[in-house]
Amino acid sequence: MARVVMKFGGTSVADLDRIRGVARRVQRAVAAGDEVAVVVSAMAGVTNQLVAWCQALSPLHDAREYDAVVATGEQVTAGLLAIALQEMGVEARSWLGWQIPLVSDDAHGKARIERIEGTELVARMRRGQVPVVAGFQGVGPDGRVTTLGRGGSDTSAVALAAAIRADRCDIYTDVDGVYTTDPRIVAKARKLDRIAYEEMLELASVGAKVLQTRSVELAMKERVRVQVLSSFEEAPGTLLVDEDEIVEKEVVTGIAYSRDEAKITVRRVPDRPGIAAAIFGALAAQGVNVDMIVQNVSAEGTTDMTFTVGKADLPRARAALGSAREAVGFADILADPDVAKISVVGVGMRSHPGVANTMFRTLADKSINIQVISTSEIKVSVLIAAEYTELAVRALHTAYGLDAA
Amino acid sequence: MARVVMKFGGTSVADLDRIRGVARRVQRAVAAGDEVAVVVSAMAGVTNQLVAWCQALSPLHDAREYDAVVATGEQVTAGLLAIALQEMGVEARSWLGWQIPLVSDDAHGKARIERIEGTELVARMRRGQVPVVAGFQGVGPDGRVTTLGRGGSDTSAVALAAAIRADRCDIYTDVDGVYTTDPRIVAKARKLDRIAYEEMLELASVGAKVLQTRSVELAMKERVRVQVLSSFEEAPGTLLVDEDEIVEKEVVTGIAYSRDEAKITVRRVPDRPGIAAAIFGALAAQGVNVDMIVQNVSAEGTTDMTFTVGKADLPRARAALGSAREAVGFADILADPDVAKISVVGVGMRSHPGVANTMFRTLADKSINIQVISTSEIKVSVLIAAEYTELAVRALHTAYGLDAA
Repeated sequence: MARVVMKFGGTSVADLDRIRGVARRVQRAVAAGDEVAVVVSAMAGVTNQLVAWCQALSPLHDAREYDAVVATGEQVTAGLLAIALQEMGVEARSWLGWQIPLVSDDAHGKARIERIEGTELVARMRRGQVPVVAGFQGVGPDGRVTTLGRGGSDTSAVALAAAIRADRCDIYTDVDGVYTTDPRIVAKARKLDRIAYEEMLELASVGAKVLQTRSVELAMKERVRVQVLSSFEEAPGTLLVDEDEIVEKEVVTGIAYSRDEAKITVRRVPDRPGIAAAIFGALAAQGVNVDMIVQNVSAEGTTDMTFTVGKADLPRARAALGSAREAVGFADILADPDVAKISVVGVGMRSHPGVANTMFRTLADKSINIQVISTSEIKVSVLIAAEYTELAVRALHTAYGLDAA
Repeated sequence: MARVVMKFGGTSVADLDRIRGVARRVQRAVAAGDEVAVVVSAMAGVTNQLVAWCQALSPLHDAREYDAVVATGEQVTAGLLAIALQEMGVEARSWLGWQIPLVSDDAHGKARIERIEGTELVARMRRGQVPVVAGFQGVGPDGRVTTLGRGGSDTSAVALAAAIRADRCDIYTDVDGVYTTDPRIVAKARKLDRIAYEEMLELASVGAKVLQTRSVELAMKERVRVQVLSSFEEAPGTLLVDEDEIVEKEVVTGIAYSRDEAKITVRRVPDRPGIAAAIFGALAAQGVNVDMIVQNVSAEGTTDMTFTVGKADLPRARAALGSAREAVGFADILADPDVAKISVVGVGMRSHPGVANTMFRTLADKSINIQVISTSEIKVSVLIAAEYTELAVRALHTAYGLDAA
């Protein structure tokens, strides 16, 4: 007997038939003797519709009202799944964020969970009742509905698992696990049985959208054993575990790519102390996050500063830099949205040197120019022209020996 | 300056354009110096969709989960309208049932309001903030979401008006007021400027679906001045007032009809004491409400008992009577769903005899057979064959002098 949190994403509860399918899966887990709590997303497409309505009425809408509107999607699914479970003879009840309560801070639209009161849920689970929790939502300090940001139901599930000390948190989704890379690009991509939290975190942050980044951070911090698996198949998925639990460490575990960034080059910046602070301070003041940064070797007293921002932030970044032009004194700005970030990730890098070199050599062999490089302890990322994305990912997948037999 | 509750029904908030239209109307009221609270229904069609989902998953679904699901419709509208108002520069915020709180009993699906905490709302209205209240919903004694039954947003609005001591409760709907009868049947129907609560109550209970019956009861009890008016026009509507405020009392104010009833005749019932109790007790035990009742003159020790039930209750009524057959000892049951109840209503009847006689004579002149009769202090109702509905309503409208010039 285990205590399990089962989380189902939007495609898994997209219509009544699928909700019944989810109910059957929960029923089997209960019949097998598990204590089960369920977390659900909104039915596929619902959240997008609600968000679109808010934006149509006011591009700069009140985030508190946005939260009241979009949180309804999960409320509907929670109630419907509870009904479907009861119809199958499984005792169940829905729980909204404010009922649990799942208390968050007041950063509406992207709130962070502060506390989950799990005592009542655990008591009911012990008596055989299945709590069906509306994901993505909480209640703020002032008693208003909050939401946790897109993909927030993953975080709800992991936080709930931590709060009720669940043995496992199963994230059911429309893929059957975490792959060495995107199987749509590389036919020989392999499903991973296990992946370290740190690796998953790097993959999630560079565009492998299986899990919300924050949910992985939380799982790592709270040591929640998260499993990613398919809601449409019966096969086991990928288990997120502590690095120590992975005995045979691959040097590189996965290859991720992201086309969501844009490159900006600020040209002929006076090369004097405080210039970087002036440029990035202006961007930060406009809420623009900067990712990769590289500064060219200085010549004739000026330097070029290149960095990446989220593609959606490009107009705001241009505006911020335009306003700062006089103070900073640069010549001009070049912006290029047609870039892709390719990342190789693996905890084995810590003990194996030469990983970056393999990457550079592989890309050079394919005549792919590297524009920017950034590294972390377990990741090497490069920025290349977007048109080479698939070529680069496939070549690297082979070069690091990840291709399925 | 007045304190006003403005309530908008589903067709008034059916899409974003109409929500903007509602916001403009609220904006005008605020600009005119009124303190305004708004109550909204779900967007037209949304509640039906949510109800259909619950029923598809389980015909006998848990009413508590049903409430969690269907209450989302009003939550969405409240948030969207708050956004639309803010976009127009009107300070506004949405309020859900549990946030106010609007406390109800635990009769999920048809809960009754027990208490509304209006202090905070009034304080904010005085500062110029418009509360946008999600109608139809409350919170039960155990902290779960409740709903007030179909049309319950009317009741939310009237109860809120009483709680915050509003000067008026304006119910905006898709008709421009209360008519002497259904204008789709009688072209010469007239809009009433005023109608007494008691009359409105009788009309609402016999099928004039402008307002939920319970909202009229509540308005009468709390003496809330309710105005029914169109959300698409600027004309004044119909004001619900105390009988004393109507100086020129018509004998008959309005004529209503309902095709929602079915007639049942229990034949050759032994004519002994306790028989009526046995029959109607069996029906009550199955939750079947009985409306009109008539017992024929007894002959040869047996009698026929005729009554009406809601058309939807007919199968349950048949089953209940079938089970009671042996105990009661009747011969057989005749059921006729093809009936209509025609009612003439008016507080003037109290002082004018002969109203019923006019009705009977008018119907006789048209060769319409009366099957059952029931009367109250201000209402006479008859049951006729459904096919004569329009003919009867038109003839009576003329007979009581209600036709527009």
